[in-house]
Amino acid sequence: MTRPVVCTTVAELRDALETRVSQGVTSVGLFPTMGALHDGHLRIARTARDENDLVVVSVFVNPLQFGPDEDFDSYPRHLERDVSALADCGVDVVFAPSTEQMYPGGVPVISVTSGRAGSVLEGTTRPGHFDGALTVVNKLFMIVQPGPGIAFRAYFGEKDAQQLLLIQRMVRDFNHRVHIRPVPIVRSGEGLALSSRNQYLTADDAAHALVLNRTLRALAAGELTLEQARNTIDGEPGVTLDYLVTVDPDTLAETPPRAGALALAAAWVGPTRLIDNMKI
Amino acid sequence: MTRPVVCTTVAELRDALETRVSQGVTSVGLFPTMGALHDGHLRIARTARDENDLVVVSVFVNPLQFGPDEDFDSYPRHLERDVSALADCGVDVVFAPSTEQMYPGGVPVISVTSGRAGSVLEGTTRPGHFDGALTVVNKLFMIVQPGPGIAFRAYFGEKDAQQLLLIQRMVRDFNHRVHIRPVPIVRSGEGLALSSRNQYLTADDAAHALVLNRTLRALAAGELTLEQARNTIDGEPGVTLDYLVTVDPDTLAETPPRAGALALAAAWVGPTRLIDNMKI
Repeated sequence: MTRPVVCTTVAELRDALETRVSQGVTSVGLFPTMGALHDGHLRIARTARDENDLVVVSVFVNPLQFGPDEDFDSYPRHLERDVSALADCGVDVVFAPSTEQMYPGGVPVISVTSGRAGSVLEGTTRPGHFDGALTVVNKLFMIVQPGPGIAFRAYFGEKDAQQLLLIQRMVRDFNHRVHIRPVPIVRSGEGLALSSRNQYLTADDAAHALVLNRTLRALAAGELTLEQARNTIDGEPGVTLDYLVTVDPDTLAETPPRAGALALAAAWVGPTRLIDNMKI
Repeated sequence: MTRPVVCTTVAELRDALETRVSQGVTSVGLFPTMGALHDGHLRIARTARDENDLVVVSVFVNPLQFGPDEDFDSYPRHLERDVSALADCGVDVVFAPSTEQMYPGGVPVISVTSGRAGSVLEGTTRPGHFDGALTVVNKLFMIVQPGPGIAFRAYFGEKDAQQLLLIQRMVRDFNHRVHIRPVPIVRSGEGLALSSRNQYLTADDAAHALVLNRTLRALAAGELTLEQARNTIDGEPGVTLDYLVTVDPDTLAETPPRAGALALAAAWVGPTRLIDNMKI
């Protein structure tokens, strides 16, 4: 496949996009990533490729979404490898800006806040994480936005359910002209949601981790109450439940299990924290 | 003059704009207001008229920027009068959405935050005010944005100096594709900065309120120290000084009075809070 055009500045990216748009592109797909791409990412890139004339993948390790004790400095950065993998997916443009390009002069004065909705669930253990993620996604939407008359779609995995819901909500609350395309969770044959953290699981852990998906399915089917489902996960050997809740997908407010609600689970399996989710 | 097209929904406005853009408009000017238009507003509308093919004025009393003890309910609403005045200025489109149209389902989950820069000066006595103002201005930029290839300008009065600085910063931090055009303060013959709130002033209040402009001019001319200027305002009958500071216009950090600094004043005149400012 052709190597994608790699842009490192906003001006360069906008020039590249405007040139392509003036050549008759009618749809643009954006897939924001932090690089370190694995098969789950590439599946999303291919979905974007199938659905759009022009596909942009951003690769930016966003410092704002890392806490002070998190792994910003050691987060894997392999741009050349990522660009090659994206070439195989037929991606047209890779946007790989520097931190100075995205945040000239340092931390932005004006930013995006998710308030209460970003401080519950995953936000409990990662304060500020979602505000940082929304702040950069908002900027990426602004930078790539091709304008009226051209379809603009942005791709996010359903596995990071809270992030996806917050981004969908931001699109509505900010009047962004972008269509969010959620891409379903990829699972192993046995049902485990694919994650880069699965590599840390022993064979025993991996077997016990299946309780997450199995229990979410039983909850979604109405075979278990929320309380029973919590006890099932927490009762699995080697598994400690962090949370299992059902929420309103518009507000992230907790709601009883009912059609349209989303069940969100997080659990420690041995030393590894896993998340999973399912629509009810 | 022709009556402007009045749009009350986002969809209606976007349709109207896209129709005009497809007819060859090459520049769009947006002037966001809360209505209750006075000569100061109309001067800004005329500036926008002079500089753009298509002029949109929004009239929306934004509940998010009023505190619980502020005058949201009693804020003057005279849409028909405003539309007539805007017709005289040659404005093409008035966007007058309902609260439900701007905030479907109530207070937005995702919003804009100005952090520390929005919690000093006016932000001290109006917690959340600037976040509310930025949240609605961000939405208006998104709604009106005509897309690449068409000049997009937004007009703000210099009277709300802190708001103007924060909006300029938001444009940079969010990668908004809009050019901010600051418009100088309009004053009465006696020097009072025009404001919707001036209508709350009795004749006596209005006379006492002149101390603001008079003192700012003396401070700017070096005839008074900052301390003397504060005492002058606070010593005026019926006037209680809230703050008088000189700040660096780029950072809003307090600085001694010097060329290039901006003097910002706020004072209660009777029951009415007024602001004014002047470059030194």
